[in-house]
Amino acid sequence: MRNLDEATITQAVLARHSSTADARLCEVMTSLVQHLHAFARDIKLTQAEWRSGIDFLERMGKACSPDRQEFVLLSHTLGLSTLVLAQNNKKPLGCTEAAAFDELETQNSRVYDLGADISGGRQGAKGYMRGTVRDAQGNPLPHAAIQVSQAGGNFSDPVASDTDRALLQADQSGRYFFSTVVPQSHRVLHDGPVGDMLAALNRHAWRPAHLEFVITASGYKRLTTHVFREGDPYLDSDAVFGVRSSLITDWVQQPPGETPDGTVSSDPFYTLEFDFFLARD
Amino acid sequence: MRNLDEATITQAVLARHSSTADARLCEVMTSLVQHLHAFARDIKLTQAEWRSGIDFLERMGKACSPDRQEFVLLSHTLGLSTLVLAQNNKKPLGCTEAAAFDELETQNSRVYDLGADISGGRQGAKGYMRGTVRDAQGNPLPHAAIQVSQAGGNFSDPVASDTDRALLQADQSGRYFFSTVVPQSHRVLHDGPVGDMLAALNRHAWRPAHLEFVITASGYKRLTTHVFREGDPYLDSDAVFGVRSSLITDWVQQPPGETPDGTVSSDPFYTLEFDFFLARD
Repeated sequence: MRNLDEATITQAVLARHSSTADARLCEVMTSLVQHLHAFARDIKLTQAEWRSGIDFLERMGKACSPDRQEFVLLSHTLGLSTLVLAQNNKKPLGCTEAAAFDELETQNSRVYDLGADISGGRQGAKGYMRGTVRDAQGNPLPHAAIQVSQAGGNFSDPVASDTDRALLQADQSGRYFFSTVVPQSHRVLHDGPVGDMLAALNRHAWRPAHLEFVITASGYKRLTTHVFREGDPYLDSDAVFGVRSSLITDWVQQPPGETPDGTVSSDPFYTLEFDFFLARD
Repeated sequence: MRNLDEATITQAVLARHSSTADARLCEVMTSLVQHLHAFARDIKLTQAEWRSGIDFLERMGKACSPDRQEFVLLSHTLGLSTLVLAQNNKKPLGCTEAAAFDELETQNSRVYDLGADISGGRQGAKGYMRGTVRDAQGNPLPHAAIQVSQAGGNFSDPVASDTDRALLQADQSGRYFFSTVVPQSHRVLHDGPVGDMLAALNRHAWRPAHLEFVITASGYKRLTTHVFREGDPYLDSDAVFGVRSSLITDWVQQPPGETPDGTVSSDPFYTLEFDFFLARD
């Protein structure tokens, strides 16, 4: 294999992988090399552009830390995450759609009692959310674990606020309820290379308002999903392409007066009822 | 753009890029997103595999340092560099082929007089190289700058030994000559994620013996190339796919006796004559 050029290099690389013991790895790398090379050929990538790409990847690497997953954000903003999620998570009939990778770890959550205020010091309009965790037939599932992640407030990005989660347990009738601030649209982390890429592409970094939930019940498939807010201006231009119609809900404004937790509010407040439907494991 | 799935996500991402002011950037990103998505669809990438890929990229980023360009090494070992080099550097008639990106910086070179020993303490058989820098018609070019990078010895990878370069200047007849140790096959850096990838693919990390040259002469296109050694066992399986037949040369073994620099050697030594032919700028 000498004198390889743009016409022969791809087969030469693939031939080098032919003794790979792991058949799936060989399949993945074959497709990756073919697409990587086809990309460079299709656009006739120049050396200067190749160098820009290398520099971008090195900047990506430097931007990563235990609190910041820049490559995850790149995958999200290029639509790869939505693609992988969609092709691996067909919505089971009667169940709530997934809207994010099932990756959050629960060990960093803060445990709250049902009915607690989980806003964690965020500023904004008060909201009361409640609902029931059910199976696909609508039967309540007792004692499901409900993890809620909130963006906005002090947090510009849910990717970066993984340690800021509330953990609740539904009651024996499957009911859950808590209060927090009504979620607001917010931007993904955009002070790094991904932010520079979005700016160069004339793209904004906004996500529509949502709460993120991870629902776990014994014998059922864990559900990781978002509950979006009707009326948000970014529902049709989510920077990470994650909005599902079935997950858009209406926070209903209520006049001042008694709130769901029995206190009296002198300001208007919001309420939301949303049931989660889990698939059998 | 809601409810995007594996069939609709690609067009949705491309539509988001439609207002990009830089037409070339838009072209590059369109192809990149199409191939990235097609890769994930073709192999039906799973979430666990996506996570492995993210982890690999984060490890790649951590492995990079000013002295170590792990992403460059990844590009080399996946054949991307050879592809980009080939499609941007057609060999001009009568000229020496390029064999590497024109990226080396000369400011870190150590300057030597013609005829000097540039081995820098490397151990091995003594070799004397000489030749002439010429134009495409064979006319000598006076006073060309000749930068020589050597791998092997204490250096496992030319990528990592960029600061270890010798700089010579050809004489007014275009002639150059120096001594060093005869180059040996050596492995690219393989103690990081790229090395792990090569191992998983059952690939070796060896490059055939070579010296790397960057030749600069006023009015001529800078030439970055390798001079390989005939007989090396890795000429047909170079880990970075860089061997060109026209650049394979024969280091000729000579009996003990007087060497080209006038000293007397009690051991056999090697000689090599190689002319470089530069294209007009």
